[in-house]
Amino acid sequence: MGKLIWPGSTQLAPLPAVLVGTGGNGFANNLITVAWVGIVCSDPAMLSISVRPERFSYKALVETKEFSVNVPLASQAASVDWCGVKSGRDVDKFAQQHLTALAGSQIEAPLVAECPLNLECKVKEIIHLGSHDMFLAEIVAVQVSGEFLTESGRLDLERCGGVLGYAHGHYFDLGKCIGHFGFSVRKKPGAKIRK
Amino acid sequence: MGKLIWPGSTQLAPLPAVLVGTGGNGFANNLITVAWVGIVCSDPAMLSISVRPERFSYKALVETKEFSVNVPLASQAASVDWCGVKSGRDVDKFAQQHLTALAGSQIEAPLVAECPLNLECKVKEIIHLGSHDMFLAEIVAVQVSGEFLTESGRLDLERCGGVLGYAHGHYFDLGKCIGHFGFSVRKKPGAKIRK
Repeated sequence: MGKLIWPGSTQLAPLPAVLVGTGGNGFANNLITVAWVGIVCSDPAMLSISVRPERFSYKALVETKEFSVNVPLASQAASVDWCGVKSGRDVDKFAQQHLTALAGSQIEAPLVAECPLNLECKVKEIIHLGSHDMFLAEIVAVQVSGEFLTESGRLDLERCGGVLGYAHGHYFDLGKCIGHFGFSVRKKPGAKIRK
Repeated sequence: MGKLIWPGSTQLAPLPAVLVGTGGNGFANNLITVAWVGIVCSDPAMLSISVRPERFSYKALVETKEFSVNVPLASQAASVDWCGVKSGRDVDKFAQQHLTALAGSQIEAPLVAECPLNLECKVKEIIHLGSHDMFLAEIVAVQVSGEFLTESGRLDLERCGGVLGYAHGHYFDLGKCIGHFGFSVRKKPGAKIRK
């Protein structure tokens, strides 16, 4: 069967599914689940998140110009999903999900202590695109849970069940490691395969 | 063990690892592997890719203002990796990787026939960020390989080994499906688990 042509839609996959933390500067701590997130620059380290203006977190993002991106483990999928369904207008998401607000080193917005990887972000620019506004932000600091470091100090979330991925409306864990960047041109044929 | 604080860096995961196709309007067909890619808006459907100006594909992106985003299966990881290591200055990536350039329905840039999901993109804005320029683009059409559709017409790449993910320098397939969006608030407890 050949190709079918569909109208343009947001079919890219897999995407990260992260908890974005907002708060500080008079705003209560809140969390919003975001899959419209991606790295946009290496130096300076920058990412973008896109959020609908009608979302409760939007005002805090615009006014504080700060947020945290908290990368969850696959085992935290239910909390991530719940925070994407509920609104901070109605519930205290940290309290309801038994999550701990951790202080940032460079931002007032809260981090999620239970997530193994936390990116502290400062907004540089807000671009109105349509349904969503894009927040271009610099990643000013990173916090990692020490138990996920290898003996050599490398971050290794994958050995612990892995981070959470999102593809076409479904959450996934990461499965088999196929190889690392450059494996296709190594002199020794065959990438190191590990679970 | 508690948290360690590191300088800002691009630790977000997992990311898509896609083949970006460029060409048309006098440019030879070429492919560039990109992980700095993400959805930025639902309506209109938009994504961003970020590319270093010194990359061979950069000029074609700037001048044609078109590209394709080709989402590979995990089984295509070696081709994706190879296209990220080699330069179109030196090799014909389509020919060397035995990939077929497929005509877009709305763009002149080539699509990769062997990838199950192809997004046709038109550049709306280029933003200089630092090491990378960000290309904000509208997804004007999507092509899907018919064999990946379910009987009800839903795209189901995951049942076929899944799409390719990238996390901290390593390629992964997607593993277990944990549930779909909203599973945490369903009345029936427990998400549908499938491989």
